[in-house]
Amino acid sequence: MKLAEIAEFLQGKLDGDGNSEILRVASFEKASENEITFLEKADNSNQTNASCLIVHENFDAKISIPIIKVKNPKLAFAKIAVVLHPPKKRETITHKTAIVSASAKLGKGLFIGAYVTIGENSEIGDRTQVRAGAKIGDNVKIGANCTIHPNVFIEDNCTIGNNTILHCGAVIGADGFGYVRDGANGYVKFPQIGTVTIGDDVEIGAHTCVDRGALGETRIGNGTKIDNLVQIAHNVQIGKRVVIASQTGISGSTVIEDDCVIGGQVGFGDHATVKSGAVIGSQAGVLPGKIVREGVWWGTPVQPLDEYKRQNAHVKGLARLKEEVKEIKKRLKEKSE
Amino acid sequence: MKLAEIAEFLQGKLDGDGNSEILRVASFEKASENEITFLEKADNSNQTNASCLIVHENFDAKISIPIIKVKNPKLAFAKIAVVLHPPKKRETITHKTAIVSASAKLGKGLFIGAYVTIGENSEIGDRTQVRAGAKIGDNVKIGANCTIHPNVFIEDNCTIGNNTILHCGAVIGADGFGYVRDGANGYVKFPQIGTVTIGDDVEIGAHTCVDRGALGETRIGNGTKIDNLVQIAHNVQIGKRVVIASQTGISGSTVIEDDCVIGGQVGFGDHATVKSGAVIGSQAGVLPGKIVREGVWWGTPVQPLDEYKRQNAHVKGLARLKEEVKEIKKRLKEKSE
Amino acid sequence: MKLAEIAEFLQGKLDGDGNSEILRVASFEKASENEITFLEKADNSNQTNASCLIVHENFDAKISIPIIKVKNPKLAFAKIAVVLHPPKKRETITHKTAIVSASAKLGKGLFIGAYVTIGENSEIGDRTQVRAGAKIGDNVKIGANCTIHPNVFIEDNCTIGNNTILHCGAVIGADGFGYVRDGANGYVKFPQIGTVTIGDDVEIGAHTCVDRGALGETRIGNGTKIDNLVQIAHNVQIGKRVVIASQTGISGSTVIEDDCVIGGQVGFGDHATVKSGAVIGSQAGVLPGKIVREGVWWGTPVQPLDEYKRQNAHVKGLARLKEEVKEIKKRLKEKSE
Repeated sequence: MKLAEIAEFLQGKLDGDGNSEILRVASFEKASENEITFLEKADNSNQTNASCLIVHENFDAKISIPIIKVKNPKLAFAKIAVVLHPPKKRETITHKTAIVSASAKLGKGLFIGAYVTIGENSEIGDRTQVRAGAKIGDNVKIGANCTIHPNVFIEDNCTIGNNTILHCGAVIGADGFGYVRDGANGYVKFPQIGTVTIGDDVEIGAHTCVDRGALGETRIGNGTKIDNLVQIAHNVQIGKRVVIASQTGISGSTVIEDDCVIGGQVGFGDHATVKSGAVIGSQAGVLPGKIVREGVWWGTPVQPLDEYKRQNAHVKGLARLKEEVKEIKKRLKEKSE
Repeated sequence: MKLAEIAEFLQGKLDGDGNSEILRVASFEKASENEITFLEKADNSNQTNASCLIVHENFDAKISIPIIKVKNPKLAFAKIAVVLHPPKKRETITHKTAIVSASAKLGKGLFIGAYVTIGENSEIGDRTQVRAGAKIGDNVKIGANCTIHPNVFIEDNCTIGNNTILHCGAVIGADGFGYVRDGANGYVKFPQIGTVTIGDDVEIGAHTCVDRGALGETRIGNGTKIDNLVQIAHNVQIGKRVVIASQTGISGSTVIEDDCVIGGQVGFGDHATVKSGAVIGSQAGVLPGKIVREGVWWGTPVQPLDEYKRQNAHVKGLARLKEEVKEIKKRLKEKSE
Repeated sequence: MKLAEIAEFLQGKLDGDGNSEILRVASFEKASENEITFLEKADNSNQTNASCLIVHENFDAKISIPIIKVKNPKLAFAKIAVVLHPPKKRETITHKTAIVSASAKLGKGLFIGAYVTIGENSEIGDRTQVRAGAKIGDNVKIGANCTIHPNVFIEDNCTIGNNTILHCGAVIGADGFGYVRDGANGYVKFPQIGTVTIGDDVEIGAHTCVDRGALGETRIGNGTKIDNLVQIAHNVQIGKRVVIASQTGISGSTVIEDDCVIGGQVGFGDHATVKSGAVIGSQAGVLPGKIVREGVWWGTPVQPLDEYKRQNAHVKGLARLKEEVKEIKKRLKEKSE
């Protein structure tokens, strides 16, 4: 792709030879000839051997290679990367070992890999890829342009939108974890007969588990991105454009509204609510029923970051405080003698 | 099912038309015609459009729909739900793609799905369902009426009781994590040649890992329920009717006695002991060798909930305490001037 | 194996009948005839029914059974265990249901199990075992003498060394978790087009996820051992002989140098560095960009164990400190009256 084309695609301002050929993206440090990279901030000016550098529109350092000025260099880099490195195109084929129910409704341009199973009345949208060993139950709906990676399992009656990616081993719609104690007899399973509905442009990480609703639905909204090994319990409601990092666990019926950012290894008790725009730091713990408002939150039990820092500073200062009290006692004792 | 039959099955007292037909259970909020739901506590009185409400025997509000009075409405609801929504019945079949060793001993009424493998001398009890892609090693024993969900793996020599459910991707009997340091050469694997024994009426969540014993056995007792993504290390001993929520990790040789309840994301060091009836809150940390007695426990390192709350209150009060000490110092200084 | 042979193999000093036959290793408590066990420390002297006991060279208690004296009994036990219980030998076979690309380069003495898939141009070294349902992408390189357990997935272009074990369900090379926010449009995927390189003698636990580099490489060095359900993000660099316990999560671009020991459920922010020889306790939290030096570390945010203990003691002493301040205030009030 020629630099001039890239600049046009990115609606950026090119400074340099528009005929240079770009083959790949690369990191700033490792980039070499025919590669394009980016500088996240205007003031960074280390060396790169790239053939072109995407920079912030305010960038004004002297540099010997062509540059493209844009408002958000990292975003521009991500956008051109998809063009230069399109997702692997798999041929339109249903592998001879795939077992597809006769009642399944299959779209056009599908890739269905080896040892895939697709159950009764399930629907798969156009150009979706179902990779080796993925298992899709009965009455499942999957939209168009999805990628279902190897060994994914989607249980009966679940629904997946368009352009959604389920990474290897994701489990959608297994039973939620709910029981009623029956005295000395132990536990009776509470019904887990609901479903899971996942929106468009969602990404679900490897081995992440999204349990089906107990009676109703577990929902994940459009544009939400979830990392590996995350647990999403029955009846959880996750809004749009939410980001959830690895190993976080969300208990039953908790609600996470639109545009939240959740760190890794966070734990949510059940029936908590996270209001739109909240950011929760890694390893935080949100108690059952807690309402977390917009802002940045940290710690267990979760509190506003400022309070957490203040409290942490107080704890760090405890040795000195103790020393001061000791000193006061000594002085008082001296006086009274 | 007619209401009169349901009332009889639940040994409850029906107040209303016994001929009403019930087809499904539903949540209190979403229930509509021909559906039954429940009120957990006697004093809750929102609206429902259900055709019948299961209530506590002390319930005495006026209500326009039939009710069934029982001692434990949630338990009764769970019990009738199993009758109205029996687990999916799969036909008795060994799928033509299943690879079953000639030496395996298979019970009656089995469902063995596509791409299942069953190794030498393994035994599978009557009416057990082994779903697509599950892999069962050699010399494995599985009881009757079990459900082995897709992609489960059971390693050689492990034993599973009756009526037990292994959810998608559960790994039973992989090697434990044990090594001996050999100086600059790094680590030598400590033998991981034991087994796993899982009892009756157990449920193991999706992607939960139960490692085989190093030399002896890893055990999970009857009626124990374990959520998704839990780690159970070599030689762990878990008693009967224990509940363990998602993402908890239990290190080697730790013992959890009967009737304990363990929250999510709890971490146990090795060789700890949790006495019968203990309840441990989410994200708690139990140090190696620690003995946790009956009662409610919280925090890292784990402590009785009361102590944890008291300590937390003290920490929250640190700013004020610091202020008080500053005030005292000021007064003392004024006096001495 | 005769005791004399075992003593010679272990370069230990035998005290007893060299002709005794040993068939198996066993634990100290459970060992019986024809079994060998060990005493970790010289001063332990409970009863064992083993036919031989491996002891420390300083051991001098009277004992009625043959002993072998060595420098490190546990290490010696682990070494003889491998001889007495060699890993299961699977026959050289490519199962008829395995789908192996015609362009794959296969070594000698391979076991390739049922329903395995191996992609284009992938290479597998001599005597490696690829068990049932493992899925190997295109251009993957796997060394000699590896064991790839059931349902493992290795994505395109990843490299695995020699003598490495990937446990059931491990996911090597799935996309890292990186996005760029594009205002109200939500998130654009940052390119995840790098690779994973895993060294020799590595062990990766069940369901552990090692994400591919975003642009570069995610690396795991020789001799490193990683437990189950661990998350290793894009571009993480792990050195040699590192031990990482279960459910730990390591964020993008973090570096863990050689010979570190990391507990379970530890969380690492991105771009952190752990210097060679550091030991980090379970459930610790390492902030992004933090440098953790050699020594023992604990808590969130992580601090040296000594400081952590001191601080914990201060917090435990808060009730008393508060009482002291109250007492001082009372005395001052009395005086001023």
